[in-house]
Amino acid sequence: MKGHIRISEIFGPTVQGEGPLIGRPTVFVRTGGCDYRCIWCDTLYAVLPEYRAEWVLMTPAEIVGRVDALAGSKPVLVSLSGGNPALQPLAPLIALGRHKGHTFALETQGSVAEPWFAELDWLILSPKPPSSGMATDWAAFAACLEAAEGRPSCALKIVVFNDADYAYAQTAAARYPALPVYLQVGNPMPLTAANGTVADEADIDDLLHRFRWLVGKVTADRWFSATVLPQLHVLVWGNKRGV
Amino acid sequence: MKGHIRISEIFGPTVQGEGPLIGRPTVFVRTGGCDYRCIWCDTLYAVLPEYRAEWVLMTPAEIVGRVDALAGSKPVLVSLSGGNPALQPLAPLIALGRHKGHTFALETQGSVAEPWFAELDWLILSPKPPSSGMATDWAAFAACLEAAEGRPSCALKIVVFNDADYAYAQTAAARYPALPVYLQVGNPMPLTAANGTVADEADIDDLLHRFRWLVGKVTADRWFSATVLPQLHVLVWGNKRGV
Repeated sequence: MKGHIRISEIFGPTVQGEGPLIGRPTVFVRTGGCDYRCIWCDTLYAVLPEYRAEWVLMTPAEIVGRVDALAGSKPVLVSLSGGNPALQPLAPLIALGRHKGHTFALETQGSVAEPWFAELDWLILSPKPPSSGMATDWAAFAACLEAAEGRPSCALKIVVFNDADYAYAQTAAARYPALPVYLQVGNPMPLTAANGTVADEADIDDLLHRFRWLVGKVTADRWFSATVLPQLHVLVWGNKRGV
Repeated sequence: MKGHIRISEIFGPTVQGEGPLIGRPTVFVRTGGCDYRCIWCDTLYAVLPEYRAEWVLMTPAEIVGRVDALAGSKPVLVSLSGGNPALQPLAPLIALGRHKGHTFALETQGSVAEPWFAELDWLILSPKPPSSGMATDWAAFAACLEAAEGRPSCALKIVVFNDADYAYAQTAAARYPALPVYLQVGNPMPLTAANGTVADEADIDDLLHRFRWLVGKVTADRWFSATVLPQLHVLVWGNKRGV
């Protein structure tokens, strides 16, 4: 249906657990569908077509109504996530939400550029490192930044599982020296769920060990312009959905 | 000795664990001496006169030399902390460090204003809530902001242990609506050390429980302009010094 948006889930308010907006109260609007298949994807229910029956088509007015209901009709930061939210026609949603005072942050891998990126408050580009099994199309990535036209605050967020990912992050950061860089330790726990579903329990000791490793790398290399963060929500709530 | 600075410790690079600069690589310069005696102070070794023998008087050149040695002579964010670093004559240190490309963030309770606050990159004002046992002098606090002259980025960071602290944070935020507000869950662990020293082990479950409680308060109240963060370094390294 034209103008409808494919929604996997809307939840909150909670706090953003990652990246430049860590700790900020937000309502998440997660779209369904993705052009990537990252090996360690932690939101497969918003990616794989077999979950399509769980997704609903909603109008911008319905989505803003749901955000307003969750936020007590107070202006709130809306985090547009996925899947890849750039695949959905989000311009009317952003326009309507902004009219109600909401602000919008969108996170995408940077594979699909849309002119409405310029209407966002935050564009968080999260190109996927080698451990994902995906290859980055840097021309598409550059198009995303061009689409933003310097209007939203832009940031680079890169998940790091291993040395190859770290090297990739260094290369990506060198390509875009003007973008603030957020390195995020990878969360391998979804991999260990035998039946393909995401495990609720996270291995906190492992995540903290990975975080210390990544801090050690960054400080040993004197990479002082990078910010190193864990997924705070995973430390706090595990791999649960809806928090 | 005139111009010397009383130093408790210099360490790093590590990542900032708190507030607006969470996750940023930094070298900490902790000064000795404080005009406050917060009940739950987690750095008593930089506060109490009985630790004075551990403090050293250093010149700005010596301090910058130590920062350079730790940072491999690369420009780095220097976090000036204490104790109350506003009690020390830091203007020449900031001038010399800036000449070498370093940037400076200072955290203080806001009890003592100094004209050199205007030379900082970040001024993080952390007035102490009722659970500290201290009373806030709001005139002195206002003088700190005036001293900054709008030049450094300023933020309000308030530790919250309980409902009274939370109410205090709301009042403080209402006084300064233009300042971004960071709420930080209190860390009660130092209190439990029977012999007055700080325990290395932190009660992570308790800290996460406190974090979830604070997120619940903020989201229930629709206080969407507040950012809620834990002390990341305590989750990662416990109450250890030098990380």
